[in-house]
Amino acid sequence: MSGSLVIAGLGPGDEALVTPEVSQVLAEATDIVGYTPYVERVPARDGLARHSSDNRQEIERAAHALEMAAAGRKVVVVSSGDPGVFAMAAAIFEALESGDSAWRQLDIRVLPGISAMLAASARVGAPLGHDFCCINLSDNLKPWPLIEKRLRLAAEADFAMAFYNPRSKARPEGFAKALNSLRDACGPERVIVFARAVSTPEASVRVTTLGDAQPEMADMRTLVIVGSSLTRVIERDGEPFVYTPRSAP
Amino acid sequence: MSGSLVIAGLGPGDEALVTPEVSQVLAEATDIVGYTPYVERVPARDGLARHSSDNRQEIERAAHALEMAAAGRKVVVVSSGDPGVFAMAAAIFEALESGDSAWRQLDIRVLPGISAMLAASARVGAPLGHDFCCINLSDNLKPWPLIEKRLRLAAEADFAMAFYNPRSKARPEGFAKALNSLRDACGPERVIVFARAVSTPEASVRVTTLGDAQPEMADMRTLVIVGSSLTRVIERDGEPFVYTPRSAP
Repeated sequence: MSGSLVIAGLGPGDEALVTPEVSQVLAEATDIVGYTPYVERVPARDGLARHSSDNRQEIERAAHALEMAAAGRKVVVVSSGDPGVFAMAAAIFEALESGDSAWRQLDIRVLPGISAMLAASARVGAPLGHDFCCINLSDNLKPWPLIEKRLRLAAEADFAMAFYNPRSKARPEGFAKALNSLRDACGPERVIVFARAVSTPEASVRVTTLGDAQPEMADMRTLVIVGSSLTRVIERDGEPFVYTPRSAP
Repeated sequence: MSGSLVIAGLGPGDEALVTPEVSQVLAEATDIVGYTPYVERVPARDGLARHSSDNRQEIERAAHALEMAAAGRKVVVVSSGDPGVFAMAAAIFEALESGDSAWRQLDIRVLPGISAMLAASARVGAPLGHDFCCINLSDNLKPWPLIEKRLRLAAEADFAMAFYNPRSKARPEGFAKALNSLRDACGPERVIVFARAVSTPEASVRVTTLGDAQPEMADMRTLVIVGSSLTRVIERDGEPFVYTPRSAP
């Protein structure tokens, strides 16, 4: 088997945030595999087959990518952000572990990307500058009580928190519940940042407090950051800066 | 004031992991500021002043960078990895908040980088593929009992955990205590990854269990990842893969 499988992070949207390492594997690939909007970020060219699929079909997509690599193709599975953070890398390894044992000897590499969390944090300052956690608020793949438990423990640990997939049309009520839990645990003055589609032309950022936050401020393109008890807002003309100091008492 | 201040992430070491956005600001800078080994990653050229300082002098370095930007220079403060994760961005905002109020109107931007955490995770597979936390194990800027508390709560939340600054020559005993706490909370079978200097020529990776982990397996260039209860190891010829499934029961 001379094929290879690379799981590559395209970053949050801006081409200037794609690493040279990822650009090079995209230029050498025979097959690009992924969710349609991410595959469309890779320009068509002779010798390149682009395989798009729907968002929910992660395991089928992973098995397809492994099959093509085993057949000798140079396959790149693309994710936005970083492929290891709530993206395709875990799905590939799930398919690898349960699939054909010969797949384990394939040349498989994960190439990191600028995650939505890091891009959102940079856009507003440094809200993740001290200990933090990162939680996927979707209950598609885990029970809601586990999410609530993690929110409660993260607040008790006084972590800053980054939230992926805060709110979808299919489950609008989850994020409202999460905001209520966070308000109870952290108080209404706690800083919250809604960073939508950072690094794209549709980017928007809102800095407010848990007391003033509304569920409608988030959608599936929004990365939400809740500060720790020490997180500070620096007001100035225009967007404020938000940061968490390096020290804790 | 026509100067500017950019806090830029150089990624974990490999030049192929520096984003084009960061490469461009480095090419246009008049002044580079940072810890000596990071400043040395930016080649000398006419018109560029490079200001190196020791690791501990973060606030002095931040104030110096702000002063130069206020004087009209195009200043880039460099961090390895991502500047917002236990690096220079928080120090800049601390200096900004307590310093000259005119500084607040400066053109200040943070440019994200590939963090050590994302590079280490990608190198071994996808151990951060589900909810996780990120903790700085140095007690230079926070009390040790707070670190212990966070370890206990992170284990209770069943987060995967990424640890920065696990062990220095000046404080070798902290990481031994942390390993003991984690062993008590997570059991001896729990997966632990020692990922040293990933993406550099000195890179090395070791995958083991908390039961077999020794404090000496980490130094200040090591990023340590402890899996959640669901984290899996896929054995194969050569380095195994480590991943955390997307689903939790």
